[in-house]
Amino acid sequence: MPKIVDHDKQRLLVAEAAWRIIRKNGMEQASVRNIAEEAGISVGSMRHYFSTQSELLLYAMNLVSERVTARIQSMSFDGPPMEHMKQLLLEFIPNTDEKMAEMEVWYAFTAKSKTDPALKKLADTVYNDIRRAVEIVITSLVKLGIFRPDLNQELEIERLYALIDGLAIHAVLRPDQMNGQLMDEALTLHLTSLCP
Amino acid sequence: MPKIVDHDKQRLLVAEAAWRIIRKNGMEQASVRNIAEEAGISVGSMRHYFSTQSELLLYAMNLVSERVTARIQSMSFDGPPMEHMKQLLLEFIPNTDEKMAEMEVWYAFTAKSKTDPALKKLADTVYNDIRRAVEIVITSLVKLGIFRPDLNQELEIERLYALIDGLAIHAVLRPDQMNGQLMDEALTLHLTSLCP
Repeated sequence: MPKIVDHDKQRLLVAEAAWRIIRKNGMEQASVRNIAEEAGISVGSMRHYFSTQSELLLYAMNLVSERVTARIQSMSFDGPPMEHMKQLLLEFIPNTDEKMAEMEVWYAFTAKSKTDPALKKLADTVYNDIRRAVEIVITSLVKLGIFRPDLNQELEIERLYALIDGLAIHAVLRPDQMNGQLMDEALTLHLTSLCP
Repeated sequence: MPKIVDHDKQRLLVAEAAWRIIRKNGMEQASVRNIAEEAGISVGSMRHYFSTQSELLLYAMNLVSERVTARIQSMSFDGPPMEHMKQLLLEFIPNTDEKMAEMEVWYAFTAKSKTDPALKKLADTVYNDIRRAVEIVITSLVKLGIFRPDLNQELEIERLYALIDGLAIHAVLRPDQMNGQLMDEALTLHLTSLCP
């Protein structure tokens, strides 16, 4: 059993090295050779952990999604429902250094996913998961009887989802202008505007 | 003079070949060799048009921005002001095949801009230009006396800008779910919600 644990641990270390390369030097530099060097292991022993570069990149991309999911699953909800919903949505927004690192890597992977079928499949699953989270928020507002009855639920799901991703991407691309406080304010304002 | 025209024309052909490579095979494949082959010219003669790969990519990225600017400058405004503003904002949203091609290329370039200072500088200029366009929309609503007085203008500029980019990115990444009609509806709804 310790052997398996070590194996998983090494895969994680390699994936984290891939993240650092992607953030520092870009996806173009995410070769097996560069990642092995960053991880401090030989190119030869990389084969024990990942058979191909594609497998490695898929694992590294999936790690972003796993970390977000783990955080959401560990959330405790014991305040006002409106606050829960905001907290849930804030998980998709890079308002800490850790989440910013994840978001930067995720952005690079989504760009690559346009021409890589395996990454595309994973990206599609994640988009659907996030959309479902946004849907839960909107339907919860409806169930609570605080959602404005003149609004179209489907359209509001898409508008809120687009807002979240827009804020997240601005935090990555315009970090001097878009910060955690501003994202929080925009999200609060938006949620409030959906309720009379 | 005809020589200069030809030179500019060839640069354009090369940049368009770069767009095709980026869309088809990803930024990782946008080498001078691959782009020359796609453009149907020799690697040797590429030197006449661009001294380096960086210069070529910067030109190809700037071409996206130039095309959007040209479309905005050729817009004629002769309907209700609210409709003008929506039309202006729709220019940043990929609701035609041509604009979708531009947006896909732009997305790949912004991802690369995180680790490429020259592309970053251009990206920053474009982000500021788009923010200014969004600011013009909000301040026009204020001047027309139709902007809700309880709203914060600065926050609404950022929220609208994030929404526009979120919709645009969803059109690129989730084309089966986010289409031109839905983007138009979301934008119309959002602009309407800013006015009493």
